[in-house]
Amino acid sequence: MPLETPLLDTVNSPADLRGMSDGELARLADELRAEVISVVSETGGHLGSSLGVVELSVAIHAVFNTPVDKLIWDVGHQCYPHKILTARRARMRSLRQGGGLSGFTKRSESEFDPFGAAHSSTSISAALGFTIGRDMGMPTGDAIAVIGDGAITAGMAYEAMNAAGDLGKRLFVILNDNDMSIAPPVGALNKYLNGLSAHAPFAALRGMAEGFEAALPGPLRDGARRARALVTGTPGGGTLFEELGFTYIGPIDGHNMPELLATLRAAKTRATGPVLIHAVTVKGKGYGPAESAADKYHGVAKFDVISGTQAKSKSNAPAYTSVFGCALTDEAARDGRIVAVTAAMPSGTGLDMMAARFPARVFDVGIAEQHGVTFAAGMAASGLKPFVAIYSTFLQRGYDQIVHDVALQGLPVRFAIDRAGLVGADGATHAGAFDVGYLANLPGFVVMAAGDEAELVHMVATAAAYDGGPISFRYPRGEGSGVQMPERGEVLEIGRGRVLREGSDVALLCFGAHLPECLLAAETLAAQGVSVTVADARFAKPLDTALIGQLARHHAAVITVEQGAGGGFGAQVLQYLANSGGLDHGLRLRTLTLPDRFIEQASPAAMYADAGLTVADIADAVHKVLPQHGVAKRA
Amino acid sequence: MPLETPLLDTVNSPADLRGMSDGELARLADELRAEVISVVSETGGHLGSSLGVVELSVAIHAVFNTPVDKLIWDVGHQCYPHKILTARRARMRSLRQGGGLSGFTKRSESEFDPFGAAHSSTSISAALGFTIGRDMGMPTGDAIAVIGDGAITAGMAYEAMNAAGDLGKRLFVILNDNDMSIAPPVGALNKYLNGLSAHAPFAALRGMAEGFEAALPGPLRDGARRARALVTGTPGGGTLFEELGFTYIGPIDGHNMPELLATLRAAKTRATGPVLIHAVTVKGKGYGPAESAADKYHGVAKFDVISGTQAKSKSNAPAYTSVFGCALTDEAARDGRIVAVTAAMPSGTGLDMMAARFPARVFDVGIAEQHGVTFAAGMAASGLKPFVAIYSTFLQRGYDQIVHDVALQGLPVRFAIDRAGLVGADGATHAGAFDVGYLANLPGFVVMAAGDEAELVHMVATAAAYDGGPISFRYPRGEGSGVQMPERGEVLEIGRGRVLREGSDVALLCFGAHLPECLLAAETLAAQGVSVTVADARFAKPLDTALIGQLARHHAAVITVEQGAGGGFGAQVLQYLANSGGLDHGLRLRTLTLPDRFIEQASPAAMYADAGLTVADIADAVHKVLPQHGVAKRA
Repeated sequence: MPLETPLLDTVNSPADLRGMSDGELARLADELRAEVISVVSETGGHLGSSLGVVELSVAIHAVFNTPVDKLIWDVGHQCYPHKILTARRARMRSLRQGGGLSGFTKRSESEFDPFGAAHSSTSISAALGFTIGRDMGMPTGDAIAVIGDGAITAGMAYEAMNAAGDLGKRLFVILNDNDMSIAPPVGALNKYLNGLSAHAPFAALRGMAEGFEAALPGPLRDGARRARALVTGTPGGGTLFEELGFTYIGPIDGHNMPELLATLRAAKTRATGPVLIHAVTVKGKGYGPAESAADKYHGVAKFDVISGTQAKSKSNAPAYTSVFGCALTDEAARDGRIVAVTAAMPSGTGLDMMAARFPARVFDVGIAEQHGVTFAAGMAASGLKPFVAIYSTFLQRGYDQIVHDVALQGLPVRFAIDRAGLVGADGATHAGAFDVGYLANLPGFVVMAAGDEAELVHMVATAAAYDGGPISFRYPRGEGSGVQMPERGEVLEIGRGRVLREGSDVALLCFGAHLPECLLAAETLAAQGVSVTVADARFAKPLDTALIGQLARHHAAVITVEQGAGGGFGAQVLQYLANSGGLDHGLRLRTLTLPDRFIEQASPAAMYADAGLTVADIADAVHKVLPQHGVAKRA
Repeated sequence: MPLETPLLDTVNSPADLRGMSDGELARLADELRAEVISVVSETGGHLGSSLGVVELSVAIHAVFNTPVDKLIWDVGHQCYPHKILTARRARMRSLRQGGGLSGFTKRSESEFDPFGAAHSSTSISAALGFTIGRDMGMPTGDAIAVIGDGAITAGMAYEAMNAAGDLGKRLFVILNDNDMSIAPPVGALNKYLNGLSAHAPFAALRGMAEGFEAALPGPLRDGARRARALVTGTPGGGTLFEELGFTYIGPIDGHNMPELLATLRAAKTRATGPVLIHAVTVKGKGYGPAESAADKYHGVAKFDVISGTQAKSKSNAPAYTSVFGCALTDEAARDGRIVAVTAAMPSGTGLDMMAARFPARVFDVGIAEQHGVTFAAGMAASGLKPFVAIYSTFLQRGYDQIVHDVALQGLPVRFAIDRAGLVGADGATHAGAFDVGYLANLPGFVVMAAGDEAELVHMVATAAAYDGGPISFRYPRGEGSGVQMPERGEVLEIGRGRVLREGSDVALLCFGAHLPECLLAAETLAAQGVSVTVADARFAKPLDTALIGQLARHHAAVITVEQGAGGGFGAQVLQYLANSGGLDHGLRLRTLTLPDRFIEQASPAAMYADAGLTVADIADAVHKVLPQHGVAKRA
């Protein structure tokens, strides 16, 4: 038998799928799965979720008229098969690298990505927006949102379903139910979905409204009738989705191509209102090592395809996340009032360490940052000491709760803010850029940043001891700088920084984990005859005004350095100095922050270079501000 | 028959209710209702919602052991009967006034307010937090959340129910279903609740789990069985709440005291897990003018008790909200791509004006700011021109969506930010303090503030015309300053401010609606021989750097003035000047902002006096910064 040309090689655009037979589409899916495994073995990335939607990706593009029809992948990390099918196959090996393809969907990358993502649970809202556009004459067809069973538990997705069910417009939501988000999903809805899946056999379809059943092939139609009785106990009862106004079809087998195609075709032909198609899939499907791993290879490093063995990075210093997890577990062992909250990321935040020892004191609320923050505020009001561990970028989801439930009431909720600053391959959507500004502007907040991993241990101890109101500490992704670690965290004095190196020309006042860069810059400058003080502010609020005053008095210039956007620590220092008259007499003050643009994915080092925050950039800023440099003119 | 002593006069604490008979409690409720009407006729306030929960307030305090048991009123505006019962009756006539009782629940005010509120949909999360505290040995009993049918549609409430259903702990949620929030609620859930209410007669109880029915008096028990069949079509089927893990009881008549007491007692005795009690109430209950008004007297001015006639404020200038509503309607008439989004406040935002002319182009998404923002982003991506009109303080609920869905994708969503600055009687929880900081720190955002009501018209036109990315404009609560209104809005040049008065000593650079105060201060100062320039920045981003440079060159000092917290406009100006060397040579820069504390309710004028932002304060700041004043010393 002659070798066939791979079907995948004939696909230049999703339009090419629309001429294929169902059998060819099934074969194409197999080839696509192999290609995804091959690509990610070289690049690393979100393997498990992409393998789970291979058949869905093929079927949706084959049935719907993308890019006129708008396919919106929730979170977007499962988009690798979609990217391969949409004219990006040749660039896939640049995935998540500087200058390469994004690991998520992205509007600027392709017309087949009509609405980018990376944070979860936004797809139904966006799809409803496109649906309104379609009905108002914009050049857009149907909208299809694909959302996971973890993402659909977020309040935002519920708000969107509530709105979509109310408007009643033709719209497609595909629930990709693999019983996993990054961690196994939690919550009552998850139990409910498991019930739907467990009681109904695959290949059983449900969809009493709009005549879906009649449009289905015989065996599916019979299964649908049986499933309906099984799921609801009655032919007339409704699922939760139907109660919200959707026509519910499912559960179907998300890896069975004929079933997927038949269902999507029936839905496309018949739907007049919102339809939810419940597809059960397996995260990591078709790749043994992924299917059998606890995390289903959610996010992997480069790996060997045969063995599944992932490349390990060499590490000399412990990761900040582990340092936090250890330090909090230690504090929890000493203080029974300490509890912790994570929003679906027990492992990513290091809270799995505390959960292993104190399972009843760690609460995974699922993708529900809003609830998580106020839940913690309630615990604080009852007398407990809650730590809320959420990445900087995701904490944005709980901002109103931070203002209204925590800050306004002065409740001692502790915020452990991981992934502060630039994070590497996940790119701009995951950067922790804005937290210092949005927290330090709130009355009564204590806002800290760890200059190194030992400082993080002290800040955990400080937060545990502090009962005066809300307190936060931020720390970056990745490894520490290898400093000596303390036996036990010390309680820091609130609002007191520290001086690490004394000089006389210029002072670098660092807030957070760019401290090693500041110290290196000072060394470089010393060799050039410039004497630089390096101080670690520790606090953006309350500011160490004594330290700032001292730096201002004894240096011609002060430069603040931070891993965050403008409006953060530097702005706090400027406001204090300006309003106390400290800038009236020639002190040169500069703020080094992230620039006022989003920084695209690359290695963290390359991203900081792009941002102008390397050691050389800091040294250069010192040179520019030296009085003899003479560049500064009255604006 | 001798006149009886009013029962209400014998109540010093909720403990006094626990010795009363059911009949006395019903009589107490009647007296309480009259007292609420009497109080609010003198103070104004949230009458309708408070009248709807009179019986609930009495019944809950009679059955549960407050303050050990934690009663949490969602939003808190319905708390007037609760406040009267909890030792605050004597102070009720100071409601919502400076130095008086808050119009919401407030921890600092009473031990009977265990968790304050004002924004909606937080109560179940907080109650769950207290429940964990109870189980971990904190001094707290059961937690009871009372939440409205509008508030329960928010994603946050759903997240909390999902978590509570999952944890399975004993917890009480009372759904106060009056088929109204501020406006009639929207969404599929609302239709669902209406279905539950419509199909089941009052006095019919449901609660198959945990033997609730058995604990009920005979007639209620029979009603419960009948209702269950009516509601679900089957004795075994479940409601949406049961699918989330709650035991569901209801719907019951929330004004029938015996039924309420019986239900609460049964629930308190039997519950082992989370229970939802669905009480149907009438907003404005028992006061004719309120019951028959479209808004059920949600928020009223002082009024005449007999006629219901509300005091009208005398007004010379149009309210900013109306100016916005008119201007947007005009633009919408000219441009068919303009659409608008409100989160449950069509009248509060003025979008009711556009909805009256273009009903299909105004979307009320309910209390769902997260969905609302991303829905608008989807509409923008489809080619429409969405305006999202949300109060500053509530926009915090959509912050991550603003960052992730709008700013990162550079989508032209227009944000109309009403209630910027201090708002008066609603107090600190409703202040629009932080929006300038949290928006101006985002790359690519255009951030405007209206100096007066004519400027607002121009900014609506500017936002309608601008397709380059996200754009926002803020404006305060209340009336404009009475300036001449334009026939039609002009499109402003992006990033260009204006000079209103030229002087030579000091420049006042105002961002937003404190412009009249700046002009008045300049007049006062002119009489004292100080020559002041007054400029209207219009833009916090992009800054008018030419204007700022000019002010810096020609004045010894520049003072920024804004109706917002630190980290906002002033911080943007400081960062620009510092980093461009504009502060190196003796320019005195000061930022007048809200102080770094929350400002308690009073009249807006009194609140601004408290904040140090009166005309006299501005003039004083100018005096202090004059070179001859000589106060400024190097810090």
